[in-house]
Amino acid sequence: MSRALEFWFEFASTYSHVAAQRIEAAAERAGVPLVWRVFLLGPIFQRQGWNDSPFNLYPAKGAYMWRDMERLCAKHAIPFRRPSRFPRNGLLAARVALAAEREPWIGRFVRAVYLGNFAEDADIADPKRVRGWLEAAGCPRPDSLLERAGSGEIKDRLRARTDDAIARGIFGAPTFVVGGELFWGNDRMEDALAWRS
Amino acid sequence: MSRALEFWFEFASTYSHVAAQRIEAAAERAGVPLVWRVFLLGPIFQRQGWNDSPFNLYPAKGAYMWRDMERLCAKHAIPFRRPSRFPRNGLLAARVALAAEREPWIGRFVRAVYLGNFAEDADIADPKRVRGWLEAAGCPRPDSLLERAGSGEIKDRLRARTDDAIARGIFGAPTFVVGGELFWGNDRMEDALAWRS
Repeated sequence: MSRALEFWFEFASTYSHVAAQRIEAAAERAGVPLVWRVFLLGPIFQRQGWNDSPFNLYPAKGAYMWRDMERLCAKHAIPFRRPSRFPRNGLLAARVALAAEREPWIGRFVRAVYLGNFAEDADIADPKRVRGWLEAAGCPRPDSLLERAGSGEIKDRLRARTDDAIARGIFGAPTFVVGGELFWGNDRMEDALAWRS
Repeated sequence: MSRALEFWFEFASTYSHVAAQRIEAAAERAGVPLVWRVFLLGPIFQRQGWNDSPFNLYPAKGAYMWRDMERLCAKHAIPFRRPSRFPRNGLLAARVALAAEREPWIGRFVRAVYLGNFAEDADIADPKRVRGWLEAAGCPRPDSLLERAGSGEIKDRLRARTDDAIARGIFGAPTFVVGGELFWGNDRMEDALAWRS
């Protein structure tokens, strides 16, 4: 039995969109159990002295990233449209994903939020939108899940999750973790899934 | 006939080592003419407000990179040892590479400098070392090439080259350029070689 692969993602992250659309099917093909690990990049970037996405702070890097995303999504047949706002506030979606992390429909929900952000130019902070994605994903009680997502317990767990990311040396998204081994970026998904030693 | 691929590299860059060891054989296999384009990242980083490598400025990113380099070089069977100094001063080697860019032995020289930096922990700013790598690469007159590398003409051309990198939107190394299309990072080499439209 293969060791589990943890998929650490942040809803505002462009390359996490590409990875999120691919990871569930790829892990299944590889026979690797998948563990969803939503977290927030904002507090990590702030510790690095950034008050915005590095793609906004460094314009050449940002211009490249948007073009690279177009090519990459075309290559993988993943829907993509550059959003009118970047980065979007993914806090609500992250709390919901944390509350639902072990549900069998979590993959469908995560993919729907990313498609909202990076293909449909939707406001992922809008509770009505999030509720719709929950319903479409197969969540049996969207309203009670949304309520739980706003609880102190989930807020605390999301803060602890992000502290855990920092403690493990995570500095960007997506990051794959296998055993103690970190793999950063959608480009490393295949290496992470194949990691054995 | 395929369009040429420009390989933009900086001798202090870790991931350029991986790309430099692979690019000549990969371009040959793909039937893509290869154009060597040495440049300096220092002035580009300074414009972004960095006075050191981002791998030193952001320790989590740096710790990850060194581990990633170990895994990546093992995967590609490329010699690698973490150097005792990083980043090393690649100015002399860059001037020499610029003076020799169209020589048939340029690939051997570039690979030797990278192996010096990232496998042998050698000082790539040492003229004796650089002379040795020139000789081993097949340069017929290493002394006159070293003299030319120190000329005002080459110094000016290296400055213009780095300005050209900035004008094209290059912000890191390695970068591959095909037509007007930029591909950043060793991970994008295959996509760059396959780029057609």
